[in-house]
Amino acid sequence: MTLPSSWTSDLALPESSFAESALTRQGMLTKPPGSLGRLEELAITLSAQQRTESPAVDKVHISVFAGDHGVCREGISAFPQAVTAQMIANFAHGGAAISVLARQLDAHLEVVNLGTVGDVPPMLSGVVDEIIAPMTGNLASEPAMSPEQVVQAVAAGDRAAERAANAGAQLFIGGDMGIGNTTSAAALACALLNRRPDQLAGPGTGLDADGVSHKARVIARALARQELETDPLRLLASLGGFEITALAGAYLGAAARGIPVLVDGYIVSVAALAAVKQQPALRHWLHFSHQSAEPGHRLVLDALEADPLLDLGMRLGEGSGAATAVPLLRSACALHNGMASFADAGVSEGS
Amino acid sequence: MTLPSSWTSDLALPESSFAESALTRQGMLTKPPGSLGRLEELAITLSAQQRTESPAVDKVHISVFAGDHGVCREGISAFPQAVTAQMIANFAHGGAAISVLARQLDAHLEVVNLGTVGDVPPMLSGVVDEIIAPMTGNLASEPAMSPEQVVQAVAAGDRAAERAANAGAQLFIGGDMGIGNTTSAAALACALLNRRPDQLAGPGTGLDADGVSHKARVIARALARQELETDPLRLLASLGGFEITALAGAYLGAAARGIPVLVDGYIVSVAALAAVKQQPALRHWLHFSHQSAEPGHRLVLDALEADPLLDLGMRLGEGSGAATAVPLLRSACALHNGMASFADAGVSEGS
Repeated sequence: MTLPSSWTSDLALPESSFAESALTRQGMLTKPPGSLGRLEELAITLSAQQRTESPAVDKVHISVFAGDHGVCREGISAFPQAVTAQMIANFAHGGAAISVLARQLDAHLEVVNLGTVGDVPPMLSGVVDEIIAPMTGNLASEPAMSPEQVVQAVAAGDRAAERAANAGAQLFIGGDMGIGNTTSAAALACALLNRRPDQLAGPGTGLDADGVSHKARVIARALARQELETDPLRLLASLGGFEITALAGAYLGAAARGIPVLVDGYIVSVAALAAVKQQPALRHWLHFSHQSAEPGHRLVLDALEADPLLDLGMRLGEGSGAATAVPLLRSACALHNGMASFADAGVSEGS
Repeated sequence: MTLPSSWTSDLALPESSFAESALTRQGMLTKPPGSLGRLEELAITLSAQQRTESPAVDKVHISVFAGDHGVCREGISAFPQAVTAQMIANFAHGGAAISVLARQLDAHLEVVNLGTVGDVPPMLSGVVDEIIAPMTGNLASEPAMSPEQVVQAVAAGDRAAERAANAGAQLFIGGDMGIGNTTSAAALACALLNRRPDQLAGPGTGLDADGVSHKARVIARALARQELETDPLRLLASLGGFEITALAGAYLGAAARGIPVLVDGYIVSVAALAAVKQQPALRHWLHFSHQSAEPGHRLVLDALEADPLLDLGMRLGEGSGAATAVPLLRSACALHNGMASFADAGVSEGS
């Protein structure tokens, strides 16, 4: 097992000449200059990423990465660990939030099963088996992954991006499912941003204040266990989840294949941060969908210089925030491609 | 010509028993409680407004109200007055932003022509003629409308709501087009909120700082012309535009017919504020789509206790911000109606 080339090879930037053409076109459309705000920026950025004069996000690929966390034995989640496997079945049967949103968007949804403690029913439609282990090690007291396992997770993410590219996806969304994964994400964010656990630990799926304090202490134990790593892969092996690591691999895999990424909430933003530390050029391929209600998200977004499109108090994961923002990108593209110019419409320009 | 009953008769409130049922259902769906944030609130509010257990906004009616402003002779806009009529043609031909967005949403779009200085080509598809006069009076020095004209404008708005109801619309969007109408809207907002012109005057379609100062002085002349009116209809007659007045009438007309309203940006929020002053119960029928880049919008939204769904730096009008937010309401409904419950999906609940 070796790292995919998307992890190690230099990532190309989007093509700025297409951004320049798109900016010129925006100035010709029948509206006051700049009056579509961030919808104009989205169209311009997507043009450069997709190397086209007609950006589009009709074909959306959503990969939800699922895996269990050894740190659950520390009692850091409001939900039992069995839920990870149960939710994989719920994704496949169409009952989860991301299932509903994917149908609404006519997006392709797949669930990548990286390993769960509970049993997942066999032969579920739309579930890709990439099982590494039933769960990660308990990051409070041991490395979450072996050096082999972390590479396996990165490679699983890269393969999801490859499937998206083969399907002609114009946008990649990664989602997460894993009871306990806000603890892993917060620990990673502490290490990546040099912050205290109480600044990154939040209620997750619904901890009370005592639960959040306990979670911060568990994270502190994890951080005290090791020399502070700076290499993203080693950090992911020490503190990550299978799904968080796969997300980082998937983002680099998507960008390496020229597919822009729409980042979801807290968990996946931490994965994005790790991947950007690995390859800073990745930042130019990322759109940020929403500000999560999980309090630590703001610090992670700030580090990524990201101003997300939505702030609706969502904190579900699964890629649900990103899926909710897809219509904004579609509107941006439709306006860019479909509006008349002042000249075509015979409308007088402003002074 | 008399006022429509929607303007004068007491407006009913949404049906709270449907909100209670919807809240109960939200707690049963396979997600941590509250984790869909404002999408949950939207589904609950729409259930009460539509008096249903399965809220939907598939059928959207968009009426763009267009009319010219006598105050343009004071030089308060970056665009020439001919643009109002030219844009009516652009709406009808499908080249304007709202035309593109309406197609994308499969929404019904109509333009209500209340009177323009420029010629509008005859027999344009989708244009409803409700012509009152070529333009309003110059509000800087005279009332914008006669007592008859303001009633005509309210009635034109009510008829748009009636068409929406007859078509089975599940959501009403009103848009505005009228060169000079940020001046009228700012003057109305000053009177309604007892604010100074410099607090409500902004760049509109693109004034520079000198232009904004001049606009504020024009508004100050308008406010000095009269005793401060408190009756919304008299205020609209004194300072309004035909399209702003029709919007106020359309909102009350939609709510009176049980149709929720998605409010656009600055101009239409001022219309909503006037209509809420007329009938405070209207506030319970309004959703707010976006925070405009026009600086005075925040004060108007605060007065309506409104926290809009989007903040994308848009400032185009036409109903474009509201149209951009429609998919959020659709996602809220799809999730509410389509997600599995914990019991159905066999997923364990949290503690």
